Amino acid sequence: MRRLDRSIGIRLKKNGLTNPLQPTILVSVNEPMKRSNSLVDGIHLDRDAAQPLYAQLATALRERIQSGRLAGGQKLPSTREVAEKLGINRATIVEAYRLLRDEGWVRSGVGAGTFVVGPQDRTPAEPDGAGASFWSTRLNELPRPEPGRAPIQPPAGTIRLTSPTADPDGFPVAEFRDVLDEVFRREGSRCLDYGPPDGYAPLRELIATRLAGQDIDIDPARVILVNGSQQGLELIFRLLVPRGRVLLLEEPTYNLAIRTARALRLPMRSVPMDEDGLKLDALERLIDEVDAGMLYTMPVFQNPTGLSLSRDRRARLLTLASARGLPIVEDHFDAELDYRGDGPRPLLAEGRSPNVVLIGTFSKVLFPGLRVGWLVVPEPLIGPLSETKVCADLSGGLLTQMALHEFCRRGLLDAHLTRVRARNSARLAAMLDALDSHMPGGTRWTKPTGGMCLWLWLPRGLDADSLALEALRRGVAISSGTNFHVDGGGRDALRLCFVREGEVRIREGIRLLAQIIEEEIARLPGRDLEGAAAPIL
Amino acid sequence: MRRLDRSIGIRLKKNGLTNPLQPTILVSVNEPMKRSNSLVDGIHLDRDAAQPLYAQLATALRERIQSGRLAGGQKLPSTREVAEKLGINRATIVEAYRLLRDEGWVRSGVGAGTFVVGPQDRTPAEPDGAGASFWSTRLNELPRPEPGRAPIQPPAGTIRLTSPTADPDGFPVAEFRDVLDEVFRREGSRCLDYGPPDGYAPLRELIATRLAGQDIDIDPARVILVNGSQQGLELIFRLLVPRGRVLLLEEPTYNLAIRTARALRLPMRSVPMDEDGLKLDALERLIDEVDAGMLYTMPVFQNPTGLSLSRDRRARLLTLASARGLPIVEDHFDAELDYRGDGPRPLLAEGRSPNVVLIGTFSKVLFPGLRVGWLVVPEPLIGPLSETKVCADLSGGLLTQMALHEFCRRGLLDAHLTRVRARNSARLAAMLDALDSHMPGGTRWTKPTGGMCLWLWLPRGLDADSLALEALRRGVAISSGTNFHVDGGGRDALRLCFVREGEVRIREGIRLLAQIIEEEIARLPGRDLEGAAAPIL
Repeated sequence: MRRLDRSIGIRLKKNGLTNPLQPTILVSVNEPMKRSNSLVDGIHLDRDAAQPLYAQLATALRERIQSGRLAGGQKLPSTREVAEKLGINRATIVEAYRLLRDEGWVRSGVGAGTFVVGPQDRTPAEPDGAGASFWSTRLNELPRPEPGRAPIQPPAGTIRLTSPTADPDGFPVAEFRDVLDEVFRREGSRCLDYGPPDGYAPLRELIATRLAGQDIDIDPARVILVNGSQQGLELIFRLLVPRGRVLLLEEPTYNLAIRTARALRLPMRSVPMDEDGLKLDALERLIDEVDAGMLYTMPVFQNPTGLSLSRDRRARLLTLASARGLPIVEDHFDAELDYRGDGPRPLLAEGRSPNVVLIGTFSKVLFPGLRVGWLVVPEPLIGPLSETKVCADLSGGLLTQMALHEFCRRGLLDAHLTRVRARNSARLAAMLDALDSHMPGGTRWTKPTGGMCLWLWLPRGLDADSLALEALRRGVAISSGTNFHVDGGGRDALRLCFVREGEVRIREGIRLLAQIIEEEIARLPGRDLEGAAAPIL
Repeated sequence: MRRLDRSIGIRLKKNGLTNPLQPTILVSVNEPMKRSNSLVDGIHLDRDAAQPLYAQLATALRERIQSGRLAGGQKLPSTREVAEKLGINRATIVEAYRLLRDEGWVRSGVGAGTFVVGPQDRTPAEPDGAGASFWSTRLNELPRPEPGRAPIQPPAGTIRLTSPTADPDGFPVAEFRDVLDEVFRREGSRCLDYGPPDGYAPLRELIATRLAGQDIDIDPARVILVNGSQQGLELIFRLLVPRGRVLLLEEPTYNLAIRTARALRLPMRSVPMDEDGLKLDALERLIDEVDAGMLYTMPVFQNPTGLSLSRDRRARLLTLASARGLPIVEDHFDAELDYRGDGPRPLLAEGRSPNVVLIGTFSKVLFPGLRVGWLVVPEPLIGPLSETKVCADLSGGLLTQMALHEFCRRGLLDAHLTRVRARNSARLAAMLDALDSHMPGGTRWTKPTGGMCLWLWLPRGLDADSLALEALRRGVAISSGTNFHVDGGGRDALRLCFVREGEVRIREGIRLLAQIIEEEIARLPGRDLEGAAAPIL
């Protein structure tokens, strides 16, 4: 295994617009490992505390500096050592050190390590017009951007296998423009006024009708429009995981679900998966162990793995959750991306599911930029959710909701979906075929029949973060599995998305990736391949 | 004073679209007062607890029922009596009783009161497909819609003096359509893809340039676009008032700020105002008393009063807040609605204000339905706010942000603003003139030179909630002062908005309102008018 010390962050940009759905590619480079004395002995961090771990660590170190236990000039242990001692992620330590540096308690030079400044020598940053000094005492309380990750521009022409988002080249722009004109003609100034908080009623009804086609039979009053599925996810996390409760997630899971839970400071616990989806025995043990607020799950063509929950487990999950009082939030982001038409149905379609909330969106099949998604909630949650949505932003954009309604009413969405499914299906086939043709022994991958991505396990000994950086240098953007794990797992896997590039470029990307993997294998000490890919997620 | 018992809620609708900015008109009707024994003695509620007051009360009563201290068949005290005993709002008790009724612990008949069911006779609501029984144990944790307030349709032709929002009759719809066409031509499919989380950079730069015209000189990187000022308000409340801290508000204040803080379960404390704005001595005492997270203030043409913070106090407020480490969030919703051009500047314009966050919006001067507002934050908050915004909903709508930018770039906003200011100014003059002509002795009102509303104090003994209901019956919609108070105050005042009706209808509305006030005065016992209007907010 390669030794890692410094984390370099890369976020892809296109036309200067950062795509927040595209996970950061966190990569690492070599540096010899350092050992130092154990200045962190006796520090205890609490994952369930309101204060984030990095702030807890900074507080503990600050106290040791103020009390003199850590003397001026003393070198702090490396982030790697602290990570091993305390059993936490290294990014957390980087962040804690950065905070102490901002506050003037430590200083660091390039490659020289981090040194204690000592109370008497401390010169906190000068006050400035932007308020660094005013805010420094508050920073502990604030969510921070993903630490250690800075955006860089990928080389032009990079093959993007990172984005599980609709390909703009296929957007029906002209049709949508016509529809907007019609809405202006029909509604006049009304379409630019405030809309109802729960969303434009005809669009809510239309969504209920579309869901009926997926065997989900609900009252349109249960459909609440939100600004894309991300707002739905955040609102429902806030509603169902109040302080003191724990959020249950699949492992691996949607990277922005993890990031959102971190920003909200929700304690998280992950439920492992196998090729039949969520492992229910593990889920049941977790329900016994913690006070779970809800389970966040993607039972159909999951992101990032492309796996679906098996039919048997679907029924068992519903029974278990209902018996144990566990609300299930089902992210059905790829509702209409079943390429063979025989894929699994959502949980909400399984008859009586009073504890299931469904998240849906137009972003994956139409235009993400319009920011229209929805939640389907049980009747008792309508009032609380509606109140939360009003306070979050009053309402979504009425013009876009009216236009989406008109677009669907004219049958333009169905026509577009037929094209999207055909195109995505061909791209998926191209990727699977290229994987078969090029991937070396020791790799394995999922074979979904819908959705937007698949999951590839690397041969034992390879590191997904390094591989993602190398691939990017060679012109292919892929996502390391570490983006999709809560606790630093996922170094043995990659997510490959097949919906935002054409078939030729997908084949080329997979060929290049396979070549890089072969080169990395060749570099492995002892070329120990007998274990092959880790078979279990 | 009139005796009140039952609360009836009215929310106005227009074309079937509820306007969430329009506060509920909470009114009350007569019912003889009942007294009963003190079943609530010994119940203590904690305003600062995470659990809302109604849930605390329900828990206490539930325990008394379960323990047998409250026996089956026993009548609960009236909401009025409990409100007096416990010093809380009656709506809180209504909500607690409703929760107990939902859970099957009490039952009630029309006009007959509320009776304990007793543990052995209890039949909780039947499970249903919508999950009432599954969710009942969770309802305590969820924010509830404003209790006891149901929407009704006002009669057609009602004169609306309730909405502090732009008049749709003046929307420059055709110009905006042209601009949208141009954006489609220029950007193609890109305008329908994901936008950057912090907002479309050229629009952020344009906003910074416009703010420079108000003496606010900032780096565009400090401008973060949000979905209307409401999202800005909610995000900044969440950032700056973490658990354990207290939100400071003006009294009276923006009704949705109160509602948002309630939904977020933030403890609130109000700072009284007089005609020079916020009373700084009271603010200073509060800073001593509680751990304040931030002060939410509208120093320029405040909503609901139309008052502005005096020049002296502006300087003192900045010094005080800076010295005491108090962040100030300045809601500058009516930035460009200064009709004489000599109104006060925002706090952020007062030179070095490292602790000031500014909320701005296009909704009050252009189209509310596009949902574009902004926050200007000090540099240290950019990262935390940006992360919070990504998790809240990834980004705003790119198409509308691009269109707004183009609209402003062409000078169309400035042209529109000139028209809006002239029109609003004439409407304000009409309202002030009508008030002078028609209002009876004992009334007083503010005389703003900008903004969207003014504040009218009623003669002593009149009740604003009853008056609002009566006015609505007679064709004028106004807002009772109770909407704008945290703790049930404001029964002595009304908010009158002058921006959503023409001059003739404003005059007619004020004439009618004056007539109703005169009639109410005539009905007062003893016609005790010597006290006249309460001079202090």
